[in-house]
Amino acid sequence: MFNFIRSDLAQLKAYTPHPGGEITVPVDQLDTNENPYDLPPWIKGKLARLYQMEMASNRYPDGSHSALKEAIAQYVNHSAHLPTSPIDPHQISVGNGSDELIRSLLIATCLGQEGQILVAHPTFSMYGILAKTLGIGVVSVGRSPDTFEIDLNAAQQALEQTQKPPIRVVFVVHPNSPTANALTEAELAWLREIPQQVLVVIDEAYFEFSRTSVVGELAEHPNWVVLRTFSKAFRLAALRVGYAIAHPQLITTLEKIRLPYNLPTFSQAAAQLALAHQDSLLEVIPQLLQERTQLWHNLEQIPRLKLWPTDANFIYARLKDIPESEEALAHLVTTLKTQGTLIRHTGGGLRITVGSPPENQRTCQRMIMLLTNGLLTNEHQPDDLLS
Amino acid sequence: MFNFIRSDLAQLKAYTPHPGGEITVPVDQLDTNENPYDLPPWIKGKLARLYQMEMASNRYPDGSHSALKEAIAQYVNHSAHLPTSPIDPHQISVGNGSDELIRSLLIATCLGQEGQILVAHPTFSMYGILAKTLGIGVVSVGRSPDTFEIDLNAAQQALEQTQKPPIRVVFVVHPNSPTANALTEAELAWLREIPQQVLVVIDEAYFEFSRTSVVGELAEHPNWVVLRTFSKAFRLAALRVGYAIAHPQLITTLEKIRLPYNLPTFSQAAAQLALAHQDSLLEVIPQLLQERTQLWHNLEQIPRLKLWPTDANFIYARLKDIPESEEALAHLVTTLKTQGTLIRHTGGGLRITVGSPPENQRTCQRMIMLLTNGLLTNEHQPDDLLS
Repeated sequence: MFNFIRSDLAQLKAYTPHPGGEITVPVDQLDTNENPYDLPPWIKGKLARLYQMEMASNRYPDGSHSALKEAIAQYVNHSAHLPTSPIDPHQISVGNGSDELIRSLLIATCLGQEGQILVAHPTFSMYGILAKTLGIGVVSVGRSPDTFEIDLNAAQQALEQTQKPPIRVVFVVHPNSPTANALTEAELAWLREIPQQVLVVIDEAYFEFSRTSVVGELAEHPNWVVLRTFSKAFRLAALRVGYAIAHPQLITTLEKIRLPYNLPTFSQAAAQLALAHQDSLLEVIPQLLQERTQLWHNLEQIPRLKLWPTDANFIYARLKDIPESEEALAHLVTTLKTQGTLIRHTGGGLRITVGSPPENQRTCQRMIMLLTNGLLTNEHQPDDLLS
Repeated sequence: MFNFIRSDLAQLKAYTPHPGGEITVPVDQLDTNENPYDLPPWIKGKLARLYQMEMASNRYPDGSHSALKEAIAQYVNHSAHLPTSPIDPHQISVGNGSDELIRSLLIATCLGQEGQILVAHPTFSMYGILAKTLGIGVVSVGRSPDTFEIDLNAAQQALEQTQKPPIRVVFVVHPNSPTANALTEAELAWLREIPQQVLVVIDEAYFEFSRTSVVGELAEHPNWVVLRTFSKAFRLAALRVGYAIAHPQLITTLEKIRLPYNLPTFSQAAAQLALAHQDSLLEVIPQLLQERTQLWHNLEQIPRLKLWPTDANFIYARLKDIPESEEALAHLVTTLKTQGTLIRHTGGGLRITVGSPPENQRTCQRMIMLLTNGLLTNEHQPDDLLS
């Protein structure tokens, strides 16, 4: 009946967002890498008053984002210690979350069978999902099963040999999601050698946790773009603000492509306020990193769980005895959910966000119960698990 | 240098949004068809308290929009008097303004040289702009210079004869922007005959002003989609919420394509609150319609101005003596801006939003001064105008 819908979309499975309304019991939400703490009440109060006194709900937002871009540039320079060749506001584009920026980058480069993208699995699924909604091909290479470093030989080969259309964009996360590893020197060296006609997207969503950034190298690499977000360390996931840092010419293209009023007035004000109070907001980062160590050691007590080192606000784990058993993992995650803990089953493993101390404790206890008391073993068929 | 950017984007001119930050003096903003009134303080207060007490800034928004969709479906049914075959929430998709929905519709149908779109000029420029960012061709037909009714012969011919690729989507606004005319019976009859393999998008952004809708016909036309917005009558332009009403199968496709967390928590709450208080908010509509009549009669006193009847919250005008003189119109609009009035120069004419009484009075006075005191005549070259 619907002949006007592109046939390739029929097969596409969408990203499953938080159902929101369906959650009726209090839960430990360790599945989306959010900061466990809301903004402090005094900042929320300030924002609420700003809304009441100074924001006209009936007027379109500032479509230029100029004040926000100015504040972001300052933050980027300050946090990257870039006194000599600072980032200026013309190198910033702001999006409805990084998601909108990822889509704009794909539209700018690969549409019309002009290019495909390269990702190293497992990684953030949104690159591939958004590419497919646009009919863009996704070339996937693997990672070392021990360190999750990108298989650089395979990646280089894909870059050189992919034809019709060639690879035009390489997406990496630094540190990677779900595996939590920052880019290694070897990976960075490879990215530096990628030819100018290929765009390199380095997603630094977890920068405030890893404190490692490639922003200082942007001036040397005009084909690089860094993505950042206010959704993680800055606690603004509800308000959807992400940004891109790149050469002004690429930014001009992103600005052409984005929706003219992509960012609500309230979200712009929230991001500006968060930057104005960055010291207060980022104060909890060291606590979260300590808490991450604690959670890691607690999870390590579960003999069947293999853990990896982490540079982000989450921990990646797999089952030692039945590695990458999607069925067993799905069963574990579903059972945890019924007990009140949400974690993410992805890429053949488990991604567990570092939450508040009580959230982490409850989650650990539940996982210990399920994984050490014989409740979830490979001697049983999945149907019998937990029965 | 930037070989990874699509070459067709270089020529593209983006929509110019409100600069926001650049406006430093109080102005009469009659250029973007907003409602001149902010939400009443008690609703803003309620929303501010909701934000402080119930919204977690650090958590991703409800990605299912289920509560909001439920409320929208009720409003649509109530306002369209649809007791027998009501619209249900599965026929609703919510976007970051209608803009995001327009983009999703284009992505769903025309990408990869599968289709082009048909518009009747002058109309809302965003259809063409967003199509071009996606590399989608735009076929444009004209309108009657007297009534701005679509040239239906030309449109039918374009539909039948456009090849490689064919027309897959027809975009109309009901009532049209910038010309303010609702669809006529002849236009509606033509839309009803459009074959099923072509999607018909009927943008009802100004529905609350025109009180005319095709929602009651959606059940008979599965290839129709209606767009609506909270940015105009509902006074929420700052918060960016639009919605689409269509057959569930088309809605499923739009839901696959949209960004998973496209709508901030605050925006969702604002739209729900606006619907809960719809009677209070829509109370000003009759006043605005009266004010529109007043503004129309005042502008009519300017002999050089030709006005058209209006079904929306704006008035369309052209210069009688120098019709469609882009230079003269641009000069007039620029001069008005220096005096404190923003109106829109578009499609060979002027689009003037109905503002508050003082805004309308000031704007009229300024236009009378400029257009009747010989300051803007066709005897002068544009360089001499207003000199």
